[in-house]
Amino acid sequence: MSKKRIGILTAGGDSPGLNAAIRAVGKACLGHHGFQVIGFRDGFRGLAENRSMALEGSQLSGILTQGGTLLGTSRDKPHRMLVNGQLADMTDAIARNYEENGLDGLVCLGGNGTQKNALRLANKGLNVIHLPKTIDNDVWGTDMTFGFDTALGIATEAIDRLHSTAHSHHRIIVVEIMGHHAGWLALGAGIAGGADVILLPEIPYAVESVAEAIRERSRNGKPFSIVAVAEGALSLEHHAALKAAVGKKKKVGAETELVLASRTLRLSEQLQKLTGLEARVTILGHLQRGGAPSAADRLLATRLGTAAADLVAVGVYGIMVAAVGEETQPVALEEVAGKIKTVPLEHEWIASARRVGTNFGD
Amino acid sequence: MSKKRIGILTAGGDSPGLNAAIRAVGKACLGHHGFQVIGFRDGFRGLAENRSMALEGSQLSGILTQGGTLLGTSRDKPHRMLVNGQLADMTDAIARNYEENGLDGLVCLGGNGTQKNALRLANKGLNVIHLPKTIDNDVWGTDMTFGFDTALGIATEAIDRLHSTAHSHHRIIVVEIMGHHAGWLALGAGIAGGADVILLPEIPYAVESVAEAIRERSRNGKPFSIVAVAEGALSLEHHAALKAAVGKKKKVGAETELVLASRTLRLSEQLQKLTGLEARVTILGHLQRGGAPSAADRLLATRLGTAAADLVAVGVYGIMVAAVGEETQPVALEEVAGKIKTVPLEHEWIASARRVGTNFGD
Amino acid sequence: MSKKRIGILTAGGDSPGLNAAIRAVGKACLGHHGFQVIGFRDGFRGLAENRSMALEGSQLSGILTQGGTLLGTSRDKPHRMLVNGQLADMTDAIARNYEENGLDGLVCLGGNGTQKNALRLANKGLNVIHLPKTIDNDVWGTDMTFGFDTALGIATEAIDRLHSTAHSHHRIIVVEIMGHHAGWLALGAGIAGGADVILLPEIPYAVESVAEAIRERSRNGKPFSIVAVAEGALSLEHHAALKAAVGKKKKVGAETELVLASRTLRLSEQLQKLTGLEARVTILGHLQRGGAPSAADRLLATRLGTAAADLVAVGVYGIMVAAVGEETQPVALEEVAGKIKTVPLEHEWIASARRVGTNFGD
Amino acid sequence: MSKKRIGILTAGGDSPGLNAAIRAVGKACLGHHGFQVIGFRDGFRGLAENRSMALEGSQLSGILTQGGTLLGTSRDKPHRMLVNGQLADMTDAIARNYEENGLDGLVCLGGNGTQKNALRLANKGLNVIHLPKTIDNDVWGTDMTFGFDTALGIATEAIDRLHSTAHSHHRIIVVEIMGHHAGWLALGAGIAGGADVILLPEIPYAVESVAEAIRERSRNGKPFSIVAVAEGALSLEHHAALKAAVGKKKKVGAETELVLASRTLRLSEQLQKLTGLEARVTILGHLQRGGAPSAADRLLATRLGTAAADLVAVGVYGIMVAAVGEETQPVALEEVAGKIKTVPLEHEWIASARRVGTNFGD
Repeated sequence: MSKKRIGILTAGGDSPGLNAAIRAVGKACLGHHGFQVIGFRDGFRGLAENRSMALEGSQLSGILTQGGTLLGTSRDKPHRMLVNGQLADMTDAIARNYEENGLDGLVCLGGNGTQKNALRLANKGLNVIHLPKTIDNDVWGTDMTFGFDTALGIATEAIDRLHSTAHSHHRIIVVEIMGHHAGWLALGAGIAGGADVILLPEIPYAVESVAEAIRERSRNGKPFSIVAVAEGALSLEHHAALKAAVGKKKKVGAETELVLASRTLRLSEQLQKLTGLEARVTILGHLQRGGAPSAADRLLATRLGTAAADLVAVGVYGIMVAAVGEETQPVALEEVAGKIKTVPLEHEWIASARRVGTNFGD
Repeated sequence: MSKKRIGILTAGGDSPGLNAAIRAVGKACLGHHGFQVIGFRDGFRGLAENRSMALEGSQLSGILTQGGTLLGTSRDKPHRMLVNGQLADMTDAIARNYEENGLDGLVCLGGNGTQKNALRLANKGLNVIHLPKTIDNDVWGTDMTFGFDTALGIATEAIDRLHSTAHSHHRIIVVEIMGHHAGWLALGAGIAGGADVILLPEIPYAVESVAEAIRERSRNGKPFSIVAVAEGALSLEHHAALKAAVGKKKKVGAETELVLASRTLRLSEQLQKLTGLEARVTILGHLQRGGAPSAADRLLATRLGTAAADLVAVGVYGIMVAAVGEETQPVALEEVAGKIKTVPLEHEWIASARRVGTNFGD
Repeated sequence: MSKKRIGILTAGGDSPGLNAAIRAVGKACLGHHGFQVIGFRDGFRGLAENRSMALEGSQLSGILTQGGTLLGTSRDKPHRMLVNGQLADMTDAIARNYEENGLDGLVCLGGNGTQKNALRLANKGLNVIHLPKTIDNDVWGTDMTFGFDTALGIATEAIDRLHSTAHSHHRIIVVEIMGHHAGWLALGAGIAGGADVILLPEIPYAVESVAEAIRERSRNGKPFSIVAVAEGALSLEHHAALKAAVGKKKKVGAETELVLASRTLRLSEQLQKLTGLEARVTILGHLQRGGAPSAADRLLATRLGTAAADLVAVGVYGIMVAAVGEETQPVALEEVAGKIKTVPLEHEWIASARRVGTNFGD
Repeated sequence: MSKKRIGILTAGGDSPGLNAAIRAVGKACLGHHGFQVIGFRDGFRGLAENRSMALEGSQLSGILTQGGTLLGTSRDKPHRMLVNGQLADMTDAIARNYEENGLDGLVCLGGNGTQKNALRLANKGLNVIHLPKTIDNDVWGTDMTFGFDTALGIATEAIDRLHSTAHSHHRIIVVEIMGHHAGWLALGAGIAGGADVILLPEIPYAVESVAEAIRERSRNGKPFSIVAVAEGALSLEHHAALKAAVGKKKKVGAETELVLASRTLRLSEQLQKLTGLEARVTILGHLQRGGAPSAADRLLATRLGTAAADLVAVGVYGIMVAAVGEETQPVALEEVAGKIKTVPLEHEWIASARRVGTNFGD
């Protein structure tokens, strides 16, 4: 019997731990199971264009600690890919390349979008396994995604630094943290960094309520405050307008970073006016995606990556490898694809933050 | 009805996140529930000697990010405390001070030892709640203890640094990581740092097997190796001798740091002799306990601390506040006290490490 | 003879190492020389309003590692201070409070603005000593200011992180680094972070030249680039327009962060258009000012702070305490106040960067 | 005229910034000057055995941030190298390989030992340039060596962490910092970390004096102390014995790490006995050499490395490239080789530390 041949690609925004996961899949496939491994470049685009590289021991050495992805990534979708300036459905091309490369399975590392694309390819007959990575932690069906813990650490350290300036200058510092639809990162970093106010996509906020929380702190001798705001957080008015316009909250994700930043700047101006304190904005942006993964993310990526290799070995496909409690489990893609894990209003982190005095603007 | 009065103390070895947990218990008790909070100094000794400090808002500000414990700590046990040069049972003194301070409850932050002492006081009629902290992660009944993630990050970063020297000098680097009975920290940091060999208290090792793994790497063009060894790891011979002597593995914890270090140095010498490569030892020691807690540890400490305050509010005592999956749950002290959570041989982390080629010396 | 009484204040933007310097001045004055020390709050405003705090041992403990300034700071100038909504000259009030507090000397920690204000007070007869702090390193007469090394480390680490994303996504990342008039920070972090292009206030740039450098990298198989741009960097056109308007380059410093950010965003858009690569912007902002000072900054702050105390002891005033080579020297304020240390075009750092292939847009 | 050919090697203990310096020399030689560059492996041994690798653009990419040295290093000396189990003089072999490789110059990165070996080869007629690297900062003729700032940061961060434990447990923490002959690192990190006692090779100490400083702190309500001790620090008795034995302080460097560690452990035991406080030891060891170089070290390595390439271009050899004030200067090897830069007793750092209350055991 010939060796199994496994493809691997990374898609969507880059995230710390991708290289650790590639290493884990690769080493487990090569060394433990004796498979062959082919890496495709730049996400689904590389598979569509058949741009690949053999992954052997030497490429997998020394990458555990590195940020980014050695395979490159892109946000291209199999069924809507820009080719010669036009959107084209490249699903058939992908299926053909899968065949021509003699693949027995394809491991796709990515977030929610990748999950949907993986299901699409599974429905086309490809043997697909999805590994959940994203700094947003908003993938349904897994407790945790790799990348989140590193981003949490970076955003928290940023808040720690901003405390110095807030305190020394008696200022409000508004810090924008990544998260279009889900507030996990802003919530986690807000709690860990001791933010006084945390604004989430899940909880529309009243600016006046935020301002009052800040004024109350001033009255208690603390004329400075840290406001941690998720990119996708909306004021009540804005949220209502969006709902009126489209019947439900949507399209938020389609907004550019610039639009999101303007919204954060506007919030800062309002708070300055309402409180009489000077306010400044910091937008963390891509810093949250880069650099060496945290130890916890390396552990998680290694755990999920080696589990994926084991599932390939027994021929379990069409699934995401999920972290559930202390275990790793396969979850059917069709049960989870298309769902987004937002922060439940009754989540312990929110309850916990309220008890230490955090304001959510509601 | 008068305000509830809550005592709080920190016992055992210091651990990152203690101040974050004190802050969480304190702020939730004071601000959210309207209780009074009294801190006792230096663990159970301070309660026995009635040395306390009122904990108010100002003491709880700015401590979230600080290592150590503002209350001080000690390894003193209520029933065997050194008083005037003699061991004395101070349980009654403690119960008396608990009464005289008008306490409704006592929150004890600590590890396995503290858990046993907490149960002892609960059996004496005190309303006790235990919060699990330790860098060793070996507390039974909770998925995770605060302090562990920070220590994991420190030990992993140390391994990252040691890779430079191992690689540049073609050396074996043996790095000793804390953990007398349980290998969680060495295992986690070993995986996250990409150690080539990981030696745990749970898996007695054959030096020759370790040496052969290192020689095999040399033959494959990698004349350098990182060996992550837990303090309590034993060679097969040593383990057998201990078993023969006492009928079961015990007393390991009673050994001093110096004895443990000597054992690590001996291992290094043996590996040097068996492989022909130069070997060096690094003992991480107390570095693993100190400094600012990681974001994840601050989150966990805040979650457990505020949950403790909620349990005080409803009068649930005699329990540890455990992290189970994504939830926080009370667990009866008598179900967990005296048990130690070692690494199960079939644990996913071990399976995962083996798949990326890690040797365990077995 | 009665004890000398020394005042101390921190003015201008906050900067890592301020607390380390306060501690050094304070401990040396109190412990070594036996003086009394009074801290004034919020810069020159606190002195004008006579808001002070005694600085004793306990306040000076544990602050060595802390960012910000325990005294608070403000950008208020003695001779143009907003009082009841109107600009007022508070120099006399300051002189009066100096007298009433029985001060023998006043140590002012700050940057270029503080230096000018210190000279103003010296000319008024006050015994003033200036300690040079700023993350911009643009104080004339000293090799180095404390705060710079920490900011350099933060900005460099940010560039390290951004490399991941630039590389994985084949993008241009434009990172804006603090520095209105002087490019030390952008230059230093650009070199240390391996930026491909560095744009400085001192070297007007041609966008086309920058784009060509990026395209050249793409042609050589590196379709990603990092552009480190100082806040005050100007395109040739913009620079010429400014010169035409005012006869010389000026007013740059008066621009708000928002105006500077818009300029950076515009540059990013132009590069995207000219190169065909996707471009993204990261604005580091206040992160560069906050958090624990680096070891080198603590050393420098301690060295300058204790030297200030020694100069007080011998009655040398009207000076800045400068770091020159390996020595600490007093420099007359009137020789340096009003001058800004920009990066000389023939500076070794620039020559060095050019040799490793860095483009300066000229 | 044919291209110049330049050899490069790294010798002695590894040090952060070696790869940054290799990159700087390489990029400046290849790109700016158009030379060819050959790397020799494992220090002088690789040159003696003619084991080399061509250094081209691709090898120099991505190494700026990496610890260690991609060329490998060894402590072998040209004139006393272990060959087939016997010490041999390999100087002629080295000269021969230098010729056969058609080298125009040889850049040697290393510390004091490398400097002496470089002079030896220069005297043999080779065109040698030395770049000063060492975490010890003890190279005569240069203000600073690369590697030092990174090690300073690591050791300082370690002291920061140890403060937690010292404070929480009311302990003495003795932390051993690298430095056999020179105390720069222990002194710098001791000041930056706020150590209460600093013991240096340059100042023999009285244990009783150290103990008294610690007891004095206890009496003032601070029953904890940090003692930063350089590897080569000696008690007065030990120092006197050494002098008596050999007529001058020598052989210290020949001692093994184990001997040095035992000395530190002994000091800790004595302090415990003399003060009544519990004492613990941490030995930082190889952690101080590893990992990513600091921004300042990358800057320095880049500055010195590109300067070396410029000196090759104009044919200046037989020199060390020194950092003097803000400038880079060639210094004749024969003026500096064999000298060690220890800390002068009247150095500003020492004066400064005394003023903030640091005890030196004298």
